[in-house]
Amino acid sequence: MADLLPTEDRKTQLPPLAETGWAAVPRKDAIRKILKFKNFSEAWGFMSRAALAAEKLNHHPEWKNVYNVVDVTLTTHDCKGLSQLDIDLAKAMDKMAPDAEVQRNHGEPVMSLCEIRARTA
Amino acid sequence: MADLLPTEDRKTQLPPLAETGWAAVPRKDAIRKILKFKNFSEAWGFMSRAALAAEKLNHHPEWKNVYNVVDVTLTTHDCKGLSQLDIDLAKAMDKMAPDAEVQRNHGEPVMSLCEIRARTA
Amino acid sequence: MADLLPTEDRKTQLPPLAETGWAAVPRKDAIRKILKFKNFSEAWGFMSRAALAAEKLNHHPEWKNVYNVVDVTLTTHDCKGLSQLDIDLAKAMDKMAPDAEVQRNHGEPVMSLCEIRARTA
Amino acid sequence: MADLLPTEDRKTQLPPLAETGWAAVPRKDAIRKILKFKNFSEAWGFMSRAALAAEKLNHHPEWKNVYNVVDVTLTTHDCKGLSQLDIDLAKAMDKMAPDAEVQRNHGEPVMSLCEIRARTA
Repeated sequence: MADLLPTEDRKTQLPPLAETGWAAVPRKDAIRKILKFKNFSEAWGFMSRAALAAEKLNHHPEWKNVYNVVDVTLTTHDCKGLSQLDIDLAKAMDKMAPDAEVQRNHGEPVMSLCEIRARTA
Repeated sequence: MADLLPTEDRKTQLPPLAETGWAAVPRKDAIRKILKFKNFSEAWGFMSRAALAAEKLNHHPEWKNVYNVVDVTLTTHDCKGLSQLDIDLAKAMDKMAPDAEVQRNHGEPVMSLCEIRARTA
Repeated sequence: MADLLPTEDRKTQLPPLAETGWAAVPRKDAIRKILKFKNFSEAWGFMSRAALAAEKLNHHPEWKNVYNVVDVTLTTHDCKGLSQLDIDLAKAMDKMAPDAEVQRNHGEPVMSLCEIRARTA
Repeated sequence: MADLLPTEDRKTQLPPLAETGWAAVPRKDAIRKILKFKNFSEAWGFMSRAALAAEKLNHHPEWKNVYNVVDVTLTTHDCKGLSQLDIDLAKAMDKMAPDAEVQRNHGEPVMSLCEIRARTA
């Protein structure tokens, strides 16, 4: 069982993820990043590496792929919100796609997730 | 450029896909299938094979994965609707997942796609 | 650091692997299995799942692929011979390829590995 | 059926591949490259993309993987030697691994393959 990420950890760990393009999903305790690659092959190379990381962490993303775009949402079902596992998987994914273009016109600032509070998860 | 699948081809090719669990996406000229595997590993094995088929056809799915579930939508952007490429990719995917559980409580019967008509694609 | 598999564990764990087609590599404390699939797609589906298992165990195979054939050798570099990790990875791989044809005309019976002894690893 | 690459094409197409690290396999009409990545994840990301290219070309590599190393040999069985398919797959692979370390202490200069001649393929 994973635990909800405590407020103090949110305040230190979420802002660096915002820098790399992760944003808050409205009305959910979840983070989302939309990566745009040059083509399907590059997108698939990223997904293949991310799949390894996910299976290793035993924590899996919700993700959608359309050709060169990979749209990732991370949250932890066990605790109905963000846990350390989401932070770890987000960091691992960031290392695997340093050159992807990041779409930033979605979601809300991660600041909105920096305190644990009641949400409609 | 792919062409919209002619009505006569729809009438022969879509019903067999309905048998394997493909359904019509409401208000789109697109088909969708939701496959449920035993775990992420099985789902990923399927996706890895489907990715090969997609790249070979140069025609890619819109697909979403959450752990053991793969939710696939097929349509052809070039012609804003179903083309032969979608039929070919759907058949290829079906061969790769003979044992997956298919969720059937979504979408509409493919019958609704059996004639070409104006749609909000 | 992984430890060499003790003789008593070899005697119980290696014979079942021999049943599924694993054989001893001559003059090495290693097991090998050669799987033949219908085509590259099936072979790749297997490898994609095995890669997940390997990364999860943090223990990786030596493997060769030529079209529909996957030739796997398992041994543990840390301890210069078979460890429990090899048994675990072999079992995981067996579950992922129940229908593959297994080539059995290579190697030696696993019996030769059932005692720890000096080898030119 | 693929045809053996004509001598004039060898003279123009093989030297650029030598630049990126492809070498001749002794006594075979085949080229080989050994790529070293940072870890298994990077190696697997490369292999996953190369698998797509191979399936698209309907031409597959002989390749071996041990953790972070991918050892690729290309030749065409149909014509018992190098064909244009090998050149195309080699170029595609090179684009997918610009940062891999290339091991260069194996094989012979590609110059030895620049004329078609009898070989024990």
